[in-house]
Order: sequence, then C-alpha cells, then structure tokens
Amino acid sequence: MIIVMDIKSSKPQVDLVIEKLETSGFQAHLILGVKRIVIGAVGDRAAIYSLGLEGMPGVIGVVPIMHPYKLVSKEAAGGTSIVKVGDTEIGGSKVVLIAGPCAVESETQIYQAAEAVKKQGAKILRGGTFKPRTSPYSFQGMEEEGLKIMQAAAKEYGLATVTEVVDLPSLDTALEYVDMVQIGARNMQNFRLLQAVGKAKRPVLLKRGLSATIEEWLMAAEYIASEGNASVILCERGIRTFETATRNTLDISAIPLVKSLSHLPVLVDPSHATGIRALVAPMSLAAVAAGADGLLIEVHPEPAKALCDGPQSLSPDEFEKLVQELIPIVAAVKKTL
Amino acid sequence: MIIVMDIKSSKPQVDLVIEKLETSGFQAHLILGVKRIVIGAVGDRAAIYSLGLEGMPGVIGVVPIMHPYKLVSKEAAGGTSIVKVGDTEIGGSKVVLIAGPCAVESETQIYQAAEAVKKQGAKILRGGTFKPRTSPYSFQGMEEEGLKIMQAAAKEYGLATVTEVVDLPSLDTALEYVDMVQIGARNMQNFRLLQAVGKAKRPVLLKRGLSATIEEWLMAAEYIASEGNASVILCERGIRTFETATRNTLDISAIPLVKSLSHLPVLVDPSHATGIRALVAPMSLAAVAAGADGLLIEVHPEPAKALCDGPQSLSPDEFEKLVQELIPIVAAVKKTL
Amino acid sequence: MIIVMDIKSSKPQVDLVIEKLETSGFQAHLILGVKRIVIGAVGDRAAIYSLGLEGMPGVIGVVPIMHPYKLVSKEAAGGTSIVKVGDTEIGGSKVVLIAGPCAVESETQIYQAAEAVKKQGAKILRGGTFKPRTSPYSFQGMEEEGLKIMQAAAKEYGLATVTEVVDLPSLDTALEYVDMVQIGARNMQNFRLLQAVGKAKRPVLLKRGLSATIEEWLMAAEYIASEGNASVILCERGIRTFETATRNTLDISAIPLVKSLSHLPVLVDPSHATGIRALVAPMSLAAVAAGADGLLIEVHPEPAKALCDGPQSLSPDEFEKLVQELIPIVAAVKKTL
Amino acid sequence: MIIVMDIKSSKPQVDLVIEKLETSGFQAHLILGVKRIVIGAVGDRAAIYSLGLEGMPGVIGVVPIMHPYKLVSKEAAGGTSIVKVGDTEIGGSKVVLIAGPCAVESETQIYQAAEAVKKQGAKILRGGTFKPRTSPYSFQGMEEEGLKIMQAAAKEYGLATVTEVVDLPSLDTALEYVDMVQIGARNMQNFRLLQAVGKAKRPVLLKRGLSATIEEWLMAAEYIASEGNASVILCERGIRTFETATRNTLDISAIPLVKSLSHLPVLVDPSHATGIRALVAPMSLAAVAAGADGLLIEVHPEPAKALCDGPQSLSPDEFEKLVQELIPIVAAVKKTL
Repeated sequence: MIIVMDIKSSKPQVDLVIEKLETSGFQAHLILGVKRIVIGAVGDRAAIYSLGLEGMPGVIGVVPIMHPYKLVSKEAAGGTSIVKVGDTEIGGSKVVLIAGPCAVESETQIYQAAEAVKKQGAKILRGGTFKPRTSPYSFQGMEEEGLKIMQAAAKEYGLATVTEVVDLPSLDTALEYVDMVQIGARNMQNFRLLQAVGKAKRPVLLKRGLSATIEEWLMAAEYIASEGNASVILCERGIRTFETATRNTLDISAIPLVKSLSHLPVLVDPSHATGIRALVAPMSLAAVAAGADGLLIEVHPEPAKALCDGPQSLSPDEFEKLVQELIPIVAAVKKTL
Repeated sequence: MIIVMDIKSSKPQVDLVIEKLETSGFQAHLILGVKRIVIGAVGDRAAIYSLGLEGMPGVIGVVPIMHPYKLVSKEAAGGTSIVKVGDTEIGGSKVVLIAGPCAVESETQIYQAAEAVKKQGAKILRGGTFKPRTSPYSFQGMEEEGLKIMQAAAKEYGLATVTEVVDLPSLDTALEYVDMVQIGARNMQNFRLLQAVGKAKRPVLLKRGLSATIEEWLMAAEYIASEGNASVILCERGIRTFETATRNTLDISAIPLVKSLSHLPVLVDPSHATGIRALVAPMSLAAVAAGADGLLIEVHPEPAKALCDGPQSLSPDEFEKLVQELIPIVAAVKKTL
Repeated sequence: MIIVMDIKSSKPQVDLVIEKLETSGFQAHLILGVKRIVIGAVGDRAAIYSLGLEGMPGVIGVVPIMHPYKLVSKEAAGGTSIVKVGDTEIGGSKVVLIAGPCAVESETQIYQAAEAVKKQGAKILRGGTFKPRTSPYSFQGMEEEGLKIMQAAAKEYGLATVTEVVDLPSLDTALEYVDMVQIGARNMQNFRLLQAVGKAKRPVLLKRGLSATIEEWLMAAEYIASEGNASVILCERGIRTFETATRNTLDISAIPLVKSLSHLPVLVDPSHATGIRALVAPMSLAAVAAGADGLLIEVHPEPAKALCDGPQSLSPDEFEKLVQELIPIVAAVKKTL
Repeated sequence: MIIVMDIKSSKPQVDLVIEKLETSGFQAHLILGVKRIVIGAVGDRAAIYSLGLEGMPGVIGVVPIMHPYKLVSKEAAGGTSIVKVGDTEIGGSKVVLIAGPCAVESETQIYQAAEAVKKQGAKILRGGTFKPRTSPYSFQGMEEEGLKIMQAAAKEYGLATVTEVVDLPSLDTALEYVDMVQIGARNMQNFRLLQAVGKAKRPVLLKRGLSATIEEWLMAAEYIASEGNASVILCERGIRTFETATRNTLDISAIPLVKSLSHLPVLVDPSHATGIRALVAPMSLAAVAAGADGLLIEVHPEPAKALCDGPQSLSPDEFEKLVQELIPIVAAVKKTL
C-alpha cells in the first residue's frame, strides 16, 4: 500500500500517518519526493481499510499495490479449483455446457428443452423461475411451480439444474430443487444475498455485474467464500459500454485475466451478452478458444414464442449446429466436451 | 411501437406479426419501405412486452416510441409531485438539505453530526446503519443499535431521518425507526426490495444505479409505485464512466431531463458522485442551479476519523461554508432553503 | 513514481531496475513487501517514459504519483491564467458568452445570428466553416467563403470570432480570418494539428475528446503549450457514456477539478453535450454555478431550418431567456457577464 | 425513417413535416397513435440528413430504420470482399498475420523483427514511424528514416509493409515506402485524413476509434470508399470502457457483427487492446475463432528495451508459441494460415 501526501504537508501530519500505520501493525517507509511525499506501507491490505487514511490531513491518495481479495485469489489455492455440480466437474479438462430456456414457462416447454440440450451433450439444465425484469409489467416467472417441473424434467433426462435466486425467500425455495443457484448480474453486489448463498453450501454461479470491474466481481466472490462456501463459478455475461449494436459488450479478455488472478472456474454466457441470436455461436467459439471452462446458452424449443429473450434464444437445431462448430475448437485447446 | 422487418420477409411472416398485434388489441399500420418493412403499432406499450415479437421470423427489431413507465411519468400526475418526509415537503419551492455521516458510528458522533447539520438548516438526518460494502472485511454498520441512537439524535434536534435498507429484514427494522428508507445504487434493480418498499407506505429515496439508464431508473421507481407507494424521491449520485479522476461522473443533466419526464422530485448526492471533498460544494451549487429539489451531503464531525467515506465527508465548518455559498444560488433560481 | 515488482523477482532483476533508474538520474527507494517488491523513484516523471520499465522482467506495473503535464499545471503558473481573445479576457471575473450557429450557412443567417447574440451580451461569435461530419454525405461547411462573411458580420457587430479547424490547410485559412481557432472533440488527439496550433500563436479553444480522460485532455493542452502557445482555453462538451437519453453526458465536475489541476480557463458547451434544446439553459446555469469561465452556445436565427444541430440550437428569443436566467447565477458566484 | 411527433402538435405542424418529406422525394405515412404522432418516411436515408427535421416544431425525434452507410454495406458487394496487400489476400480463406514492433527504432531492431515474424509465417511487417503519443515528451518515431529501413528489411525477408499515417505530409511520405497505410484509433474521425487516403488508391487499415460505435466506424470506412478507394480493412483494437484491468476492452463480438453488416475484411489487434503480454495469445485465438480475417501483433526482438509498448510486445519465442497455439484453431474454423 502506498500513501501519497502533499509536499506541503507538515511534519506532524506526516508523523500522524506513520504512527497510525505502525500502531496498526504496518511497517512504514518514508520517501521524500520532489513534489510528493510517499509512504510505503508493508502489511495486510484488508486491515488498512479500517484506518481511514484517505481522510487524514495532507493525504492525497492511497494506492493499493495488492489485490483486496484473498480466498478467491490464485495464490490461495496454489492452482485451479474444480467445482462439482451434481456429477459434473467444472474447471477441469472438460468444457461444460449449461443450456435451457430463459424462463421455465410450462411443463411441455421445459421437457422439450431438457431433451434437446441433453441430446447435444449439455450436462446442466438452466431455467429462470424467479425473473428479475426491468418492467414490473413483464412476466415475473413461475417460481416454485417452475422449479418442480424443471426438477422433474432434469431428472427425466439425467441433467443437473441451475436457477437464479433474487432474495432470501427465493433462495430457500430454490435450495429444495436445484443443484446450483445463480446470482444474476443485477444482484452481484446484493451483499446480503451473497452472504446467504455463502452460508448455503451449494455451488453458486456468480454472474458479473453489468458495470462491475473485475476486482469488484472477485470481491463479490470473496463475500461468498468468506462465509465458507468455496464452490463459486464465475460467469462473464457482458458489460455495459457505449456500444448499442449489441445488448452488452462481452469481455472475452476477462476469461484469461480472471484465470490468472483467481483459482475459480470461469464460464461465459454469450446469449445475454449479445442479445442477438446470430452472435451466440461465434462468441461461444471465441470464449472456449480464450480458455472458458464452459458456456451458458439459452435454448428454447420455439424461440418465436418465448416469454422472454426470444431474440437471443437458439432453437434445438441451432444449438446442435453450435455444438458441431464447437467440437473442433474444444479439441484445438486440448479439452473435451 | 414500430416493428421493423426484413424486406425479404414472406407475406405469411408479415401477416403473422400483424395478426398477433391485432388480436392483442393493437392497430397495425403497414409501411412497405425500399429496404425494410415497417409496422406501426398503436396501443399500450406495456402490453407489447408479452407478445415476444422480437423473436418472430423476419423481425429485425422493435423500436419503442413511448416510454415504458406510466405511474411515474409526467403525464400521470399532470405536473410535479411533492413528497412529505416528516414535516418536510420535497419537490416544492424549497431546496431541502439532507445531511449526516456515511455511517452511524457512535452516539457521540451522530449527536454531533445532528447538531451540526441542524444548525445549517438541514431538515433530514442521514446515516448508514446497514452498509453495503465492496469488501466483506470492511465495517458493515451498527444496524439496529445505530438506528436507535440516530432516532434519538434526530429527535433531540428536530430532524427527520433516512437510512439505507439492503434486504427485507433490514427494511422491517428500519421501518420502526426512520421517516424515509433509501434504496442504494447497488440495489436499484433489486426488484424484490423495490416491491417490498412499494408495499411499505413510507417515503423512499431511490438512488440511481451506477450504470442505470434514466429509463431503467424510472422503471425502478415504477416498481415501487406499482405496489401502491407513490412517495418516491429520485436521487442522482453519479454514473460509472471511463473517467477515473472522480469516483463517478455526476450526471447533472439528468436533473432537468428527469423532471421533464416524471413528476417525482429529484435530489443530488454530490458526495458519493465525486468522492472528493473539494468538489462537493461546486457540484452542490451546480445541482441546485440545474433544478434539483435538494441535496444529500455527507457531513462528519471529524472526517479524518470516519470509518467510511472520509475523503468526501465535509466537516461542520466546511458544511457551513457550503450552505453560505448555496444561499445566493437558491435565491437565483427563485427558491428558498 | 512507484515501480511494483513480483515478490518472486530475482535479485538481478531488481538490481537491473534500480540501476536503470539511478543511471537515469532518479533516486530509487527499495521496499520489500510481503507479497510485492516496491521501488519508489524520485525524479522527473516525464523522463521515466523513455526507460521502458514496464517491459522489464519482474515488473508488474508502474504507478504514477505525479501528473504527467507541466506547462499547463496549476503549479506552473502559480495561479490562474487569463487568455485574451480580441479585447475579451477569459478566465477572470467575467463569465464570457460565445454564441452563434453550428455552421455558417449564408450571409443573412450569420448577420442575423451576430446581431442576436451581440444584443444579449455575447462577446465572441462562433460559426463552423470546416465541419467534421460523421457522414460523408452531410453538409461539410462553407470553408473560406463562410469565414469571410462571418468576419464581416462580427466586425459589423463588434464581436471577436472563433471557428473550428480540422487540418493544416484549414488552419492556415482560418488564421487569416478569426481571433481564436477551435480544436474539436474528434481532433483532440490529432497531435500534428495540436503542434501546428501550438506554433500559430493564436488563442486555441481545445474541446475535450468524447472519451478523453481529464489527464489526456490536459496532455493535449500540454502539446500546444510545449510548442510555445500558452493561450489555451479548455472546453468541456460532454463525454461518451452508456446513457443514450442525452447525446453525451456533460461532466460538470470536470470544471472545478480541472481548475484545481491547471491554470487554464475552462468553458462549457451545453449545446453539443446534451443535443437537446430544453437542457441547454439548465446546464448553462449549472456550469456557471460550478465555476465555468464562460459558455459556448449554439444560436440560430431559425433553428427549424438549420443545416446542422437544429435540435439543440436556441432561437434568439430562447437565448435571451437563457441570459435572463443566467444573470442572477453569475451574480451569485460573484462574477459579472 | 420514422419521425416521432408530440400528440399535441398542431395540424399545420404535422402538415409541414409531411410537406417537407414529400417535396424531398419521400413517401410519408401518417400514423396517429394514442400518445404520439408517427410519420413513416420511405426513401433514401442519406437524403434525410439535409432536411433538418429534428429541429422542426412538434418533432420529438427521428428514428433511423436503415443503416447510414452504403458503399461498405454487405448489400453493396453482395458478399465478402478480398483486399490485396502486396501479394497477400485478406478476407478470404487464409488467416493473415501482420506483425512487428510498435515503433521502428533501429536497423538492427527492424531486421531482427522482420526475420522473426517471417519465420512464423507473417505476411506483412508492421512498424510505427510516425507515432501519435499521448505525451509530447515521448518518443515520436523515426519518420522517413524509419520507413527506409523498414522497407529494406521487408524486402530482405519478402514481406509487405504497413505503417500508420497521422496527417497529409506523413501520408505523402508513407506512400513512397509502404504497401498499406494505417489510420490509427485516434484519427478514425479525422475526416480530412480519411478523404486523403480515400484518394490515395492504396489499401487502408482502418482501426476502430477508442469510443467509436460500430456505425461510426463503418461511416469512417464509407468516407474512404466514397472517395473511390474500396480497399479498406477494418481492425478492432479495443474500446474504452470503465474496466481498468485491461488497457481497453477488446470487442470480439464486433467481428461477426461487422461481417454481417459489411463486406470488408476484419482484423484484430490484441496487443493494443489488452496492453498485457499474457493476454495476447488467448485473445488471438478468440479472435480467429470468432471469424477474424487476420491478426495485428506487436513483436519486438527485445521487449524489455522497447521504446514503446514494451509490456504488450511479444518476444520472437513468445510469437512462435502463439502461432503454434493458433494453428489448430485456424484449422477448426476451416481456414489456413
């Protein structure tokens, strides 16, 4: 940690900062520059947060040198983690496909979806049952009824399941039915929900927030891990930028970057990121080429009739075509489907 | 609503869209362009969401002509709303000051803060008791204990109160102690929480999300209003941009823009937006000049000792100076403090 | 300057960095942290750019402590600069109005515009003659013919003039006719053009680039100053963000921030920033309240017939109304028009 | 084109808009909505720009239905274009590698670089000779001297060449030495320079601007094409977002999106986009998997000594490793190197 002070700071002001650091267990190294005074602090970054140095007289800024996360950092695990969802391992040498509709809409729909995605090798069935919608007038999900039929469909076809949870009651309900819970982009900094899934001891699919930096995303994972749940899978799903031609901008570079910073597996959701059906396949290939551990893809038996996200959902035929294109890419990066 | 279709769409495809519109109560107007087919749909925009037009064959896009919010729109009220918090009216000819520390830290601190802000004419005391922090290792707030001492301090000095709520339990607790609840930027699309405060019949201070468009912000207000609570006050607090010299970019243009679209009052929080003490005063003046109905300002008896947001908190003296500068600006826009 | 190195760096790698610093005239201070090695370098930041430290083995990053600009920094002038354009001083106790049409379109139009803006107290006439347009099929400006009639109109009404230049030939032409040249947002990092206006010894209005950080903007000013031209006036005109309700997001906080970093005057262009006529007046008031030294406003005798930027241009009557609203705000910040 | 008008617009106001459209050769279709009046205009989008409809009384907005570019649109070519640079075809079934140092620094350096990249199958040598640098105090390039030695080195190893041009004089000089000229990100909307390269009849590598939308990027290409030069190659190089962990955010989704909108080839520059050496390889694989026609990669014989962009430059060994990883990906998308 580097504390930068104004060159005009008085000696008592500088001494006060050094004293605060040293009484808190840091070693302080004073560097008198030409236009700035710099204090290097050696110690635990997390501890420095409670010191309030940034508000002290003379202090211009505090520059972090270390990352603020610990449990989810690469160093913590000394390598890469594998998270197990049902019988499926995520984070190893297999590229895992999670697929299914944006929302569970009916028994027929979810059974057809489960059959279609299973046929192409997907291991986990996705389906929204508690839907966070921008408009209060949009379809809000089938809730527990949806979970029941999704569970049955998944069982029928030998798939594990994931659904998004949006608050404590929906989490409690979901835990009775699904193998993994998902924290959506809009709740990535809903810290109470993060703490609750941290206590739940069930794998968590943590989507990156729309405007979350990679550091904030890993800090959200740290919230979950700090409650004792290390089974966190990160999912890049596009960030909000000025570009309006796609719904969001899929940050493919986040895949190798996060994998160099953290031991957690990284998935990619090309459907939500782009919002455009024709881009789902090329972005899937790109994600796997860049090192993604798996994909989260919206597949609907009849996209034209979907209650949400129709424009980006693949039909079963389109999903089959995507998987065919994916196979040689998976082989090229020395993995298997 | 304008539905844009590919010029190569077949007649049955076009007919299907028109039929879907007409059976749902819309009038459809077909325009055959040179390179696109366009269908103008006259009817209720909210209803169109459930039609799934964007997923239909041939459809390139659906262009909204109307805003998607109703209850919070300017037209709904035929003018401007006044929201009453305790005895204080927000949205009228007075510029309302809400001030206090980022977090309630101790009895001494909150009483000193209450005294200081009251002295300068603030009407409402702010103080965080449930803190959403980026790091799980940061101070998380005094919770109910903090609410109790804030309530007592406010009573002592004749102030109303506001605190942030972060989930259903904290909302239940807060409702016992405060005059207004705040939805923070990170929870602006926590739709369950929005619905809960919508049912609570207590004024709500709704901060704009870090990366929320103005339309999304008004849709969040619509969530609250659609549950029957029309006492919503909007608060602009800076948006996330590429600029790193300030914590966020305060979108001052949102004030007049939102006031032209909605009847709700608009406040500004210059402290969180900039993260820099020296910018709080000029941004306060700018906000009032642009039409803000009030300000939300962080004031701490001793900013150098603040447990959070020290760098942007004003001391009582700095707050006094700000109010002195504000007085002629308030008069210039024909309002009073 | 702080050089951050991997804790696993070898001693020779660390020594190499220290040696490179010391042979280049820096003092190097080594701090062995728990998880990082940090080297504090005391010396001239500009010089460090040529060392290529970031590419050296073991180096994780180079963290600047000082700003990279010198001539335009606040310290360089020991205060605030005043730039004189014709007889008008910008940067002192007067708020200067620069107004006129987006583009010079005809003799009648520019004379009417000049008369209208002069009547309301504007000191400088603006008018585009070399137009950088997104589409090659849009009106590209009247070029020298436009400059001639703008010069004549300005002379008739006792106004100084400013026009945008887009390359070396247009600069040469403009220098024959106008009192100040403008570098537009799209050319803010056209470094050859910056060097050319730096050699031209004519006041320069330097607009902030659409996506330029404040540091990059000041570095663009440094380019001009480093060629010997210190008469630079900065102009904030909105930055590109995710928000699409306004054309750009006017960064009002940039005004006090830049004035704390640099001695140069700062103007604001609310017309281009918002792209919406109804927002021009409130943003003008906000800008002056936040400390702007003046405003750049699009005024057209008949906005409905404007060849460019009609939606944001004010009519003479609207401009008069704006000035009436501005008068008490200017007085409130203890300045005069 | 859709013109949206206020429901309170008077009949003469509506008639005026319709009249303006019809006298300009458009068919106008009036739709009276519940809360808006909408006019569908059938005709040439480019022509509508000169009408100034957005400034007319009652008009709320003009919504484009068609793209504003023509010559570079997919429809214009009825397929995909191949651009020939020297003997190398770009846009066909081969993935083309363009590689070399950020800047030409010396004869030894550029010969070593040329040898290294040729060995791995690169077809075109890149090297900056006119450098647009953020700081006026940074190395600005070897200019014509650099072009001479780059041309000689390229000839020695049988490579074509590309260099960036920054103004008209540098273009004139570069045309004597290189096979392709590059327009950098900062000059993407330097319209005079675009027009000049449009007249030059030499292939142009057009980088996407830091904050350019895809539409603006294609409009920049349209500027070049409209002057008669159809040999334009687009190059995605990262856009500016809020994320600071990478220098820019590489927009991989732009590759398939642009290829669906335009017939022009699309390359990717992973070096500038990320600014991080370790991300160059995974982003290269991702780009090719997503359909890129080639890559632009910074390779330096000794990155630790590079005068610019050392942190992102690959050594010859790292470049060799990248190419080895690339080979199976290229095969997977049914192309060849």
